[in-house]
Amino acid sequence: MATITALETRDVRFPTSRHLDGSDAMNPDPDYSAAYVVLRTDEPTASGEPLCGYGLVFTIGRGNDVQTAALQTLAGHVVGMDVEALTSDLGGFSRHLTGDSQLRWLGPEKGVMHMAIGGVVNAAWDLASRRAGQPLWRFIAEMNPAQLVDCVDWRYLSDALTREEALAMLEEAAAGRAERMSELESRGYPAYTTSPGWLGYSDEKLARLCREAVEEGYRTIKLKVGLSLEDDLRRLQIARDAVGPGVDLAVDANQRWDVAEAVEWMNALASYDLAWIEEPTSPDDVLGHAAIRRSISTPVSTGEHTHNRVMFKQLFQAEAVDLIQIDAARVGGVNENLAILLLARKFGVRVFPHAGGVGLCELVQHLAMADFVAISASMEDRAVEYVDHLHEHFTAPVRIAGGRYLPPTEPGMGAELRAQSVEEHTYPSGIIWREDAQTTATTDMKEPAR
Amino acid sequence: MATITALETRDVRFPTSRHLDGSDAMNPDPDYSAAYVVLRTDEPTASGEPLCGYGLVFTIGRGNDVQTAALQTLAGHVVGMDVEALTSDLGGFSRHLTGDSQLRWLGPEKGVMHMAIGGVVNAAWDLASRRAGQPLWRFIAEMNPAQLVDCVDWRYLSDALTREEALAMLEEAAAGRAERMSELESRGYPAYTTSPGWLGYSDEKLARLCREAVEEGYRTIKLKVGLSLEDDLRRLQIARDAVGPGVDLAVDANQRWDVAEAVEWMNALASYDLAWIEEPTSPDDVLGHAAIRRSISTPVSTGEHTHNRVMFKQLFQAEAVDLIQIDAARVGGVNENLAILLLARKFGVRVFPHAGGVGLCELVQHLAMADFVAISASMEDRAVEYVDHLHEHFTAPVRIAGGRYLPPTEPGMGAELRAQSVEEHTYPSGIIWREDAQTTATTDMKEPAR
Repeated sequence: MATITALETRDVRFPTSRHLDGSDAMNPDPDYSAAYVVLRTDEPTASGEPLCGYGLVFTIGRGNDVQTAALQTLAGHVVGMDVEALTSDLGGFSRHLTGDSQLRWLGPEKGVMHMAIGGVVNAAWDLASRRAGQPLWRFIAEMNPAQLVDCVDWRYLSDALTREEALAMLEEAAAGRAERMSELESRGYPAYTTSPGWLGYSDEKLARLCREAVEEGYRTIKLKVGLSLEDDLRRLQIARDAVGPGVDLAVDANQRWDVAEAVEWMNALASYDLAWIEEPTSPDDVLGHAAIRRSISTPVSTGEHTHNRVMFKQLFQAEAVDLIQIDAARVGGVNENLAILLLARKFGVRVFPHAGGVGLCELVQHLAMADFVAISASMEDRAVEYVDHLHEHFTAPVRIAGGRYLPPTEPGMGAELRAQSVEEHTYPSGIIWREDAQTTATTDMKEPAR
Repeated sequence: MATITALETRDVRFPTSRHLDGSDAMNPDPDYSAAYVVLRTDEPTASGEPLCGYGLVFTIGRGNDVQTAALQTLAGHVVGMDVEALTSDLGGFSRHLTGDSQLRWLGPEKGVMHMAIGGVVNAAWDLASRRAGQPLWRFIAEMNPAQLVDCVDWRYLSDALTREEALAMLEEAAAGRAERMSELESRGYPAYTTSPGWLGYSDEKLARLCREAVEEGYRTIKLKVGLSLEDDLRRLQIARDAVGPGVDLAVDANQRWDVAEAVEWMNALASYDLAWIEEPTSPDDVLGHAAIRRSISTPVSTGEHTHNRVMFKQLFQAEAVDLIQIDAARVGGVNENLAILLLARKFGVRVFPHAGGVGLCELVQHLAMADFVAISASMEDRAVEYVDHLHEHFTAPVRIAGGRYLPPTEPGMGAELRAQSVEEHTYPSGIIWREDAQTTATTDMKEPAR
């Protein structure tokens, strides 16, 4: 009998603020970071190394130590568990963590502790799919409908979607699975890019990156907005001129506005025929999103900070959104994202997963692909965000071709960092941060800051 | 010039699960705990000891270490600040912490990091009111309307309440302040009690504690419900028989139900003419509370886990509640609670603050009293929860007489723990926990568990 022998954590940070990568209206200087977790086992594998599961929570710098401490506090819930029991009941494992009443008080089901549970739950799914020798998307897509609905915590959902309704939807979708799996393997899954649109980039860099994105095959490009209406109008014109008429432009305000301000601002941008406005206001403000949606012509979207399935349920019930983002590392892991994907299917809302950061592309692509094969059965008018940062630090980085994600073939969920990257970027002892302490004042900026 | 010289934290836990104090439908075995924070200064005081400010975040056991780590991570934002600058701009201080974009990512404005900010913000208010030589309720009540509205972060509120509307409300309430302060000092503020109603208590203990509560002057008693309808019906009958017809009974389901289950259960309890049902479902489910409220006759309430002002705004906008709880240590501190009290006044919703736990009575009484003097100008049909646990550990414990809170006279907010209590209950090194490790198996239970 193999068991979980250790839960190990690391505070890993990348000094992205040095070049204003990732700068937006609310986050001027993020240092993209990962609170990293490894579940170690004593189960042998063909490689000779014992089986492990990897997970992470993405943060943007300060507080990554708190997030790492929250992961560590879950060790007592996991270490000593039987690997077979854990990997064969991932629904029970998820409820075991979210149902701890003392830890639940720290949310409930939100914030640092819920994200930590999500990180460990994702590590368990990574472990289970590695053990099965499959990439996570295929591991999920090959579960039968009853197994899938048993992964979901149905508490608080029954006024919108019941287990029985979900089962019926999945059984309906089961018919075309094999064809969709082939389609996915031959065509990949659509990506959209945010790389050109950070607020800290110059107009020249914006135009150049927009042109390059179109050349690389992207059909949707997203720009950050919300600091200055004048700048936004100018930057959208630059982007439109650079990409031509056949490419969609979306915008993201990163929670910058109150309701009336969002309506006024978006009406001023209406002539750009935008694909969506993302996070116009507080992610908690379901009714605010609904009010904004009633008053503007641009489709409304949110979700990367939506903290659990109960909030997504309400976004759908209130008809507050035209589309949503999901995030692999914000909610309680794969299980809660399955609940959210089932709700989105029920309400007919399209999903454009949030990615970027550290490893979010690597993780969330699996959820989008599993959704296509087994849940929504559609990749029409859908795309996974893509940002070309930090992929080189992962053992199985995403593969992009022609503006599409190619399905991962390596077993697991994709969160494993290269050992050298972990060592160098561990905060504050890694060499990257020791160098930073000495040379920040004279760091050569690759690009001019605005 | 005096400065903040240190931010110190302690993980303090009380072994309340040994006697099932605090047991409810979702929390069977809490160990009431405080993530404790002290702001030290080099400002001399008349006592000879330098001025300090005290705050805490209440948790129920596991995870109190994570909460304590979150408090500690704020040291860099506070240590070195000028005491005069901090205490004369408590609005700016609060926004300084909630506005840190990197920490904000960990919520935003929810969960462990937001509660940590609330703990440090409350410690700053404690410091400021001690420095002014006033109990916090009076310190707030004597601020002028413009000072009060400047304490609030107005972001995300303008579709429900603007700074200007709030200012007008406060100016209208300013007239009777002196009379209300006298009334408060002579009569105190109404309390209601939850001490009799924990699910872990026997029927005999429930009946005895109900009778004692009425004799002590309480006009409202709250019982925990939600595990067994049969038990709830029997316990409500016992309570009603014990208290007679002139005392209100309220019930609290601690988030146990889905929407339809809440409606069914509460309709089965309708004949008891209950004062309110508290937390019938997920605290995140604004629309769920509204749906429940439309379908039952009992007034609906929530708030002790409502994580910020944006959620309260929506509870009011959706007409989801008849009354609310506020909690001194759940949201971003005094500042955010002022925003919530202003919203409640605007929407005409009564406030029954959540208390109990560790120190929550000591803290929240100040907010209710300040509300009466300066904001709502009413204590009709309002009361602060009272639970008779753990007050002996505080340097200025609450004073209750005739079922009413007597206004505190000691300077500050009331979160200071006795030094000996901190030493003995520090986890895991304190003597209480070292004893626990040796003797739990043979601990003599004072009361039989059910």
